[in-house]
Amino acid sequence: MTGNGCSAAVQRANSNEGKIDPMREVFQQELTEVQDRLVEIAELVLDSIRDATTAFNTADIALADKVIASDPTIDELAVELDELAIEILYRQNPVARDLRIVVSALRMSASLERMGDLARHIAQLARRRYPDHVVPESLRDTFTQMAAHDIHAATLLEQLLRTQDVELAAKLIQSDDAVDALHKTVFETVLGDGWQGEAEKTVDVTLASRFLERFGDHAASIAKKVQYLSSGDWAAAEPA
Amino acid sequence: MTGNGCSAAVQRANSNEGKIDPMREVFQQELTEVQDRLVEIAELVLDSIRDATTAFNTADIALADKVIASDPTIDELAVELDELAIEILYRQNPVARDLRIVVSALRMSASLERMGDLARHIAQLARRRYPDHVVPESLRDTFTQMAAHDIHAATLLEQLLRTQDVELAAKLIQSDDAVDALHKTVFETVLGDGWQGEAEKTVDVTLASRFLERFGDHAASIAKKVQYLSSGDWAAAEPA
Repeated sequence: MTGNGCSAAVQRANSNEGKIDPMREVFQQELTEVQDRLVEIAELVLDSIRDATTAFNTADIALADKVIASDPTIDELAVELDELAIEILYRQNPVARDLRIVVSALRMSASLERMGDLARHIAQLARRRYPDHVVPESLRDTFTQMAAHDIHAATLLEQLLRTQDVELAAKLIQSDDAVDALHKTVFETVLGDGWQGEAEKTVDVTLASRFLERFGDHAASIAKKVQYLSSGDWAAAEPA
Repeated sequence: MTGNGCSAAVQRANSNEGKIDPMREVFQQELTEVQDRLVEIAELVLDSIRDATTAFNTADIALADKVIASDPTIDELAVELDELAIEILYRQNPVARDLRIVVSALRMSASLERMGDLARHIAQLARRRYPDHVVPESLRDTFTQMAAHDIHAATLLEQLLRTQDVELAAKLIQSDDAVDALHKTVFETVLGDGWQGEAEKTVDVTLASRFLERFGDHAASIAKKVQYLSSGDWAAAEPA
């Protein structure tokens, strides 16, 4: 979470004073630890959405089971990250932007944890309909595109958290816009004259599309937090 | 957020020392302010879910518009509460349980804000299908029950946040279990042989049921946080 920009600023501040503040150094190490853990969870979420959508689109039950089995690990890592963030708040009493970085880490871990849940929901749909495909032929291309955008968003998210390169945030938000547009397309198809799906298919498609859309929303909300941490305009990041 | 139990404990601690700590007193006032604001948002969320489900169940477009128009107020209040919590973290450097109370207020405001969004989604469904009812005759009783449980949960939530009476938390969680059970019933109906709904009805019913279920989940997750703040077993409250 510290980012190169922030670390550089801290180093400048320290060198201006002509000495290194040891408390400050410990704090920077702790922020780096928070960042590393966010990246670790984001990597697992990326694996989950990749596997879950593959399981979903190809009716692969082994992959679906893998996603379902791995979700508790994401939940545990999120809890541990929260504990670390709370400990930092307790020991370091950070102020200003540092404080917002730690608080935002709590928010980001909640979003990542939820993204893991949504990947699991998609895997559970694949499991329930196995050996059938969840989505009928006519919508498979749309769902493949949605999945690709969610995987792209999760890939960018991992890179964004690792590098703090805010240009990635804008790309990620674009990818979420694409998911939202495809989500609307799904409803147009389901509500169109050509839709032949039984109620079960309609329910599955509606839920799956919603899960994929919410996954993208959470990724975008994290990206917006990183953007606003970088710009300093925190309040604007909240309604995301 | 302080609760009578906590305030009493603080007063005891202060009187044991034979003096009142003025910093401590300011902090208690600030925690009371956080609590008051959570209650204020919970009241608005209660109004929203009551109006949204009434609009939904009776095809009342004026009520639906009222809910949609009032959602930004909930969003703003949640942002302001977050700013206050961050300021308290900055100025007071709370430790142990106090720190967890402030951090949990940030989490609770996020859940309340999301509950407001879900009420708005329900109102938007009512608006879109007006003058028709969203839900067909055969499912109206089920949705009326779901709405009643969500309203009950929101009512208990407001009381719980106001009084910190943890017995209310257990009741609230029961109400959420009832919503989950009804949510399953909706799917059984939609997937049953007797279902005559067009795809549009199937989509609407699926989404509406999901929104009502998520509303209850968020209420229950707040209740669990209050429970665990009371018991001290914080980590167990996280996966909710």
